[in-house]
Amino acid sequence: MEERDISQAVISRLPRYYRYLGELKSDGVDRISSRELSRLMHVTASQIRQDFNNFGGFGQQGYGYNVEYLYEEIGKILGLDNAHNMILIGAGHLGCALINYMNFRNRGFYFRGAFDSNPQLVGTSVAGIKIYSMDEMEQFIHDNKIDIAVLCIPKTDASSIAQKLVRYGIRGIWNFAHVDLPVPDRVQVENVHLSDSLMKLSYNLRREDETENLVRPDTVPAGEAT
Amino acid sequence: MEERDISQAVISRLPRYYRYLGELKSDGVDRISSRELSRLMHVTASQIRQDFNNFGGFGQQGYGYNVEYLYEEIGKILGLDNAHNMILIGAGHLGCALINYMNFRNRGFYFRGAFDSNPQLVGTSVAGIKIYSMDEMEQFIHDNKIDIAVLCIPKTDASSIAQKLVRYGIRGIWNFAHVDLPVPDRVQVENVHLSDSLMKLSYNLRREDETENLVRPDTVPAGEAT
Repeated sequence: MEERDISQAVISRLPRYYRYLGELKSDGVDRISSRELSRLMHVTASQIRQDFNNFGGFGQQGYGYNVEYLYEEIGKILGLDNAHNMILIGAGHLGCALINYMNFRNRGFYFRGAFDSNPQLVGTSVAGIKIYSMDEMEQFIHDNKIDIAVLCIPKTDASSIAQKLVRYGIRGIWNFAHVDLPVPDRVQVENVHLSDSLMKLSYNLRREDETENLVRPDTVPAGEAT
Repeated sequence: MEERDISQAVISRLPRYYRYLGELKSDGVDRISSRELSRLMHVTASQIRQDFNNFGGFGQQGYGYNVEYLYEEIGKILGLDNAHNMILIGAGHLGCALINYMNFRNRGFYFRGAFDSNPQLVGTSVAGIKIYSMDEMEQFIHDNKIDIAVLCIPKTDASSIAQKLVRYGIRGIWNFAHVDLPVPDRVQVENVHLSDSLMKLSYNLRREDETENLVRPDTVPAGEAT
């Protein structure tokens, strides 16, 4: 179990490796050196080697890594060799967009049902996925061996629903509600806080503005552009 | 310009401080110590002080920080005192969900128009935002002083469209396409790679599984639960 202490920073980089390796694989590339992968992904070769060493190094020998092997191994580390059964909580615009996104299914993540507190939505379907009432959630989770709940509800209800989901046996929550969820450590939460991401972009725009004003005034003398 | 070297890790934490301070403010809290904030946010008080010291420390004196002042200051650092004009590229399910999400508007991010290559969508509207053809993009960006483009298109088209956006003067891209965009350093890109996030959740589920199997077998002897 040498994997035990791997930082979330390393974990965050694994899906990106997986994506690039998948593309190399479809392009028919058999082997790649850490140097080539480094150039392609704009990270240092030493970062790549360090990251991979967390998982035993994937046996780079002679000319680089075997692309297919590395792709498969990282897929296993990411748990993509197991299918996941998911439910959506909150069938609003964002929730329905997620259900419609086919790419998750290709990776083994299957929406099995959706739940909404709006009685007008209950009984309808989104992209073939039926919407149930919130009362039916516990039974559904049990009957369909659901392990992941995707939370797309306003933050006011998110905490109490998350606690219910934990009681019903959910082990992972993909949380789009703009709040930190109060769940026990054994329940895995992955947050997608869209507003936070947009604010980070806003910060970087402001910084770039200031840098530009600082560095660029009069760099190009009047008239030079003609 | 002591702000120059602040790491993206610190930046990533700012929106979360901003969110908690906003909630404290609406709850009528005037002052808070780093210790109380630490307990509330589940980060160490020393982390909070270190983060804030990047921006001059926000003058904690006597009993803690002034909540309203801190909220305003972090808002300014995040560039939230300036409004941002945005366009959506790709009016599919996810793009329309983003346009419908009111919270961005409350923070000063305004969608001014949407663009799609599907002629059947051109001329229609989503939540009051008109959808234009891709040909109209350059003029629209110029006329409406657009600084942020929100990219919700398949990865196959994303790179070429990003390059066009840069030529048209876009300074920030909020990228939901599952690909790294080839843009110059002065253009700020914030990626939301949903599949990557889901894979990270899957990793943590698998790890928790293994830890459980390792630690818990026979912890509770048969019969003890009765």
